[in-house]
Amino acid sequence: MKDTVLKSLKQKRVVSGQSLASELGISRTAVWKYVNQLRREGYRISSSPRLGYTLDSVPDSLLAAEIEENLQTRIQGRKIISCREMQSTQDHAKKLAIQGGSEGTIVVAETQSAGRGRMGRSWASPPGGLYFSVILRPGITLAGAAGLPLVAAVALARAIQPYTAVAPGLKWPNDVLIQKRKAAGILVEMSAEMDRLDWVVIGIGVNVAAASVQLPPEIRRTSTSLAIESTRIVHRAQLLGDILYELEEALDMFQTQGFEPLRKQWKEKSHTLGKHVTVVGSRQSIEGKAVDIDGSGALVMECAGGIRQRVTSGDLFFKGGAHG
Amino acid sequence: MKDTVLKSLKQKRVVSGQSLASELGISRTAVWKYVNQLRREGYRISSSPRLGYTLDSVPDSLLAAEIEENLQTRIQGRKIISCREMQSTQDHAKKLAIQGGSEGTIVVAETQSAGRGRMGRSWASPPGGLYFSVILRPGITLAGAAGLPLVAAVALARAIQPYTAVAPGLKWPNDVLIQKRKAAGILVEMSAEMDRLDWVVIGIGVNVAAASVQLPPEIRRTSTSLAIESTRIVHRAQLLGDILYELEEALDMFQTQGFEPLRKQWKEKSHTLGKHVTVVGSRQSIEGKAVDIDGSGALVMECAGGIRQRVTSGDLFFKGGAHG
Repeated sequence: MKDTVLKSLKQKRVVSGQSLASELGISRTAVWKYVNQLRREGYRISSSPRLGYTLDSVPDSLLAAEIEENLQTRIQGRKIISCREMQSTQDHAKKLAIQGGSEGTIVVAETQSAGRGRMGRSWASPPGGLYFSVILRPGITLAGAAGLPLVAAVALARAIQPYTAVAPGLKWPNDVLIQKRKAAGILVEMSAEMDRLDWVVIGIGVNVAAASVQLPPEIRRTSTSLAIESTRIVHRAQLLGDILYELEEALDMFQTQGFEPLRKQWKEKSHTLGKHVTVVGSRQSIEGKAVDIDGSGALVMECAGGIRQRVTSGDLFFKGGAHG
Repeated sequence: MKDTVLKSLKQKRVVSGQSLASELGISRTAVWKYVNQLRREGYRISSSPRLGYTLDSVPDSLLAAEIEENLQTRIQGRKIISCREMQSTQDHAKKLAIQGGSEGTIVVAETQSAGRGRMGRSWASPPGGLYFSVILRPGITLAGAAGLPLVAAVALARAIQPYTAVAPGLKWPNDVLIQKRKAAGILVEMSAEMDRLDWVVIGIGVNVAAASVQLPPEIRRTSTSLAIESTRIVHRAQLLGDILYELEEALDMFQTQGFEPLRKQWKEKSHTLGKHVTVVGSRQSIEGKAVDIDGSGALVMECAGGIRQRVTSGDLFFKGGAHG
């Protein structure tokens, strides 16, 4: 009912308590109660005896109702779990996926107390950022899944692009850089047999509001945020809507046309190819020039003596510093 | 304590109730109670007032104590969950893996009421077969995991070989054939991020005792069992111990030397390469000659016009019937 009151306020901008009450079939006192709830959530609603209620401003909130309003998707985000604080949206989404949670379910939190990045690392999640995980059930094989991180990175870069003065660049496998610093990251986890995926959970973290000093010291030099780089104010529910839209588009393309068109887009946005890099894997480091992305999403490197090597996982560092 | 009584009986073959009682620090009545329990489980134990108890024969049982006695492994099978009946050993092992179950934990059942094969198919599990799942936590990347079904198939074929008159042959990706009929199958499932595997559960089903008529009609023509093909009596706990031993060896090799030596072994045991086959995938069928296994475990096919195609998943059928 609170969401219905909000919807009505948004549509009409100004509406009397009496007409709201009769429209929704509740008492004027009940209307007043919901309005106060909305005020506590950050909606600025003024009231005058003559005009009634006026919605003055909408908070930069990640409440389900705000997210829903910004959705332009068929599937992604059609079920929303939104919390103020959560240990990890990724762990929560994985639990839901195991229990049969449907494709497009998103789990979003204002802050995470145990946000996770790749390979068991932590992901700093101060308030004001965008941290969410989405459940996918794509009809692809495990071999095809190797392309997913790059597909997600392309979608994320496309969604972020309108917010930044400089076009984002992609660092293999799936970081989004702005001005050579990391603004967003992706974690892809899955449950699968060889022939088919059971579920995939993609976690996305975007540094939105963080000023440089709010980022952990160890990543300050190599990270940035939309607040630092942005040309316009970021409304996170809208940004989330934009990301889900681009993700749905990219996944549709991936499933109908294969990896090739996404590979092309990734390469166009690349801040990796042509650079001298070191990729540190769990067993060995490979040094050389990043020359291509192959048909499965692997990085192709040209190493000493002109020998080409395919790299399927690891951490990439640019030669001469993390910045590239 | 029952297991200790059994161990003592196995070591000594003949032992008096009194000496068993004093050895274990229990009453003679307690010894008698445990002996009767063992008898109910299928151990044939005779008793005479003069000699005491004699262990005459051991049942073909999959009780944890019997399995333990046949283990020659460091890790695989070092934790055993053995049940008379279970819906699916695979689902049970996956649940344990999600909860942090340790590497080498095996789940084994005499029969399964909802045994699963690849791609959501059922796996017929009449009593007398060997159905188990093992939890692995291998230090490999998701890209490396593509080789796992073939690694497991090599191990399974090596373990079964001493039981059969004719050497088993491998059908891509992971069926073990005897005389061109399926005697055992493998299901590999995993939870992973791109850079590392969280867990892998390998399910193995071996048709051991089934006579042809005990197999479901729809697979009777294409399946066989060790009872039909075997040159010796199969003690399932021993077969399980053999499989776990070969699996541990093959996994060690895979993790230290990579896929290459296992690829070579798979090819030596192949009943696939050189044959005209159709591979039916979820989206398309590919017809051609199976010519190689590549470095990641994919099947290389030579199709019309000499074009080579890599196939990473699907069902393989031999041209001119399922038998090859």
